[in-house]
Amino acid sequence: MKMKGIHGGDIYRNHVKVDFSVNVNPLGIPEAVKKALYEAVEHISQYPDISAEKLKKAVSGMLHVPKECLLFGNGASELFMAIIHGIIPQKTVIPVPSFYGYEYAAKAGDGEIVYYETQKENDFCLQEDFLSMLTEDVDLLFLANPNNPAGNLISREVLIKVLEHCRDKKIIVVLDECFIEFCDRACSMLQEIDSFTNLILVRAFTKIFAIPGVRLGYLVCSNPELLEKIDRQLPEWNLSGFAQAAGYECAMQTAFVEKTATYIAKERQFLESGFNQAGYQVFLGKANFLLIYCEHPLYERLLEKGILIRNCENFRGLSKGFYRIAVKSRKENEILLSAIGEIKWN
Amino acid sequence: MKMKGIHGGDIYRNHVKVDFSVNVNPLGIPEAVKKALYEAVEHISQYPDISAEKLKKAVSGMLHVPKECLLFGNGASELFMAIIHGIIPQKTVIPVPSFYGYEYAAKAGDGEIVYYETQKENDFCLQEDFLSMLTEDVDLLFLANPNNPAGNLISREVLIKVLEHCRDKKIIVVLDECFIEFCDRACSMLQEIDSFTNLILVRAFTKIFAIPGVRLGYLVCSNPELLEKIDRQLPEWNLSGFAQAAGYECAMQTAFVEKTATYIAKERQFLESGFNQAGYQVFLGKANFLLIYCEHPLYERLLEKGILIRNCENFRGLSKGFYRIAVKSRKENEILLSAIGEIKWN
Repeated sequence: MKMKGIHGGDIYRNHVKVDFSVNVNPLGIPEAVKKALYEAVEHISQYPDISAEKLKKAVSGMLHVPKECLLFGNGASELFMAIIHGIIPQKTVIPVPSFYGYEYAAKAGDGEIVYYETQKENDFCLQEDFLSMLTEDVDLLFLANPNNPAGNLISREVLIKVLEHCRDKKIIVVLDECFIEFCDRACSMLQEIDSFTNLILVRAFTKIFAIPGVRLGYLVCSNPELLEKIDRQLPEWNLSGFAQAAGYECAMQTAFVEKTATYIAKERQFLESGFNQAGYQVFLGKANFLLIYCEHPLYERLLEKGILIRNCENFRGLSKGFYRIAVKSRKENEILLSAIGEIKWN
Repeated sequence: MKMKGIHGGDIYRNHVKVDFSVNVNPLGIPEAVKKALYEAVEHISQYPDISAEKLKKAVSGMLHVPKECLLFGNGASELFMAIIHGIIPQKTVIPVPSFYGYEYAAKAGDGEIVYYETQKENDFCLQEDFLSMLTEDVDLLFLANPNNPAGNLISREVLIKVLEHCRDKKIIVVLDECFIEFCDRACSMLQEIDSFTNLILVRAFTKIFAIPGVRLGYLVCSNPELLEKIDRQLPEWNLSGFAQAAGYECAMQTAFVEKTATYIAKERQFLESGFNQAGYQVFLGKANFLLIYCEHPLYERLLEKGILIRNCENFRGLSKGFYRIAVKSRKENEILLSAIGEIKWN
């Protein structure tokens, strides 16, 4: 059934002291959000609000986007699936390496999937030839900014060029911004949703608010027909009482998000220098994780020390030797770098 | 987007003291389940187990069914949707009146939907002519036992006749047993899943364990190809950490389920007599709710007293004057009957 080992965070089948394989906020869940979850237990015998009005209003306020442009899902993964079910693409383009969830969702449909392979030599960034793949027969493009696992950011300039090209060719663009809050948010396309009715922007509360167990994501789109098509494919009551309560509080955490971005920038640099000094190849990442390359069995050696990292050899477009490392707290990052220092490859 | 007013329990847009519009267990959430939810808050920054192994094993033990025969969903409503996406039925039959969720899910597909109208005169039970609707061009049948909102139970004998007929005609039967634990469970088809590879039995934890805010349902089916088709249409990580933790504890609550069935039988009789004595028409219900008929504006008069019941006039196959009333605790049932006693229709 579900493919095992394809994702990070499998602390259920490993003995792990520090988990660098998942990319959640090292500052942890905000106190107000945790409090809201505790309080939600007391109301859990009531049906959650089918319209999620309170949540919708709060997120609309947080993003400065009309609530009619929002759809919520039981995690971003439910939204990817609903997009496929709603659009029924005949042909989908996915640049790789990238998050397996796009391929998983696309495979739920019967359409063709074409992969655009970004190259190690270019730090896995899109190149000029990318646009030539986006022909009129393509219905859907999955794009992530920043990309996962490489962590590179696509500039506003390139993104707008891609969106314009896709608008001309009538290609719907699903832009995954699940990690954008950890980065330079000037690269977000949130301000462009009115200009591009072919744009579906997807975000999640999972990573930035450190609540993967809750399941809550949303999409932003200015195209009512498209929204209607996707909404029909979402189950009724897809949002739990916990998701609605936590999401409302998350929408109030502006200062926490700012603080996170500053913290991550500093710690990413700390980790990056550490790995560079230890002789590892680190790719140009701007997110809360780093892709590194090492020809030795790094995953196994770190796991012996109770440290779990993401072995990326099963990512489409990658191969043996690629590993993804989350940017965590200073204390944890020091544990990792110290472990790296102890490992001698002979 | 989502149709409002189509379901009960809208305490978000009404002022309600006692809610008889939703059918959750009046004994409330079991203490161990509530405790598990509180504990789950502490682990919510971890990704839930993508394989839900602990939950799967526990439910497999509870049902005495191999875990390979189980699929879990973010509520039964997600499973109904995944069934439609997996089977892509050209023609679906739904007896009505019934739960709106079947129609909602079927409409996510493009197939034809045919409704079989059960009659007031027959207490909304299926009649002999039902089988004649189930012709070879039908791909899928939604059936609920007990039915909602009428609450009538289909006997084993009739069910097996329907399942055999459908097996001959290659019709897949989705049998919704979300309320079966409140009733005479001898009518369940759980023991028959091996005999009928065309049977998909759906259940939820929502009603019997009073946790609609959690979102957790499951299906049981002995047909691996069918399971695989449905599973591919479910998002990865569709189960929250709360759902997995609560579901595990629910699977241990055998005594609680027994106690509930006894309690409901007694209270249903109490309510039924009360309504009969007050001159209302009560239909033959065997579940934790009763369908009644009253030509006066009962919904409005009770809402004035802070009591919410389910106005069923928007159910397909019903009309003005039908109301559904949940069987609740003795204290609450007394409040309702006392309110009924105070209302004079002139």
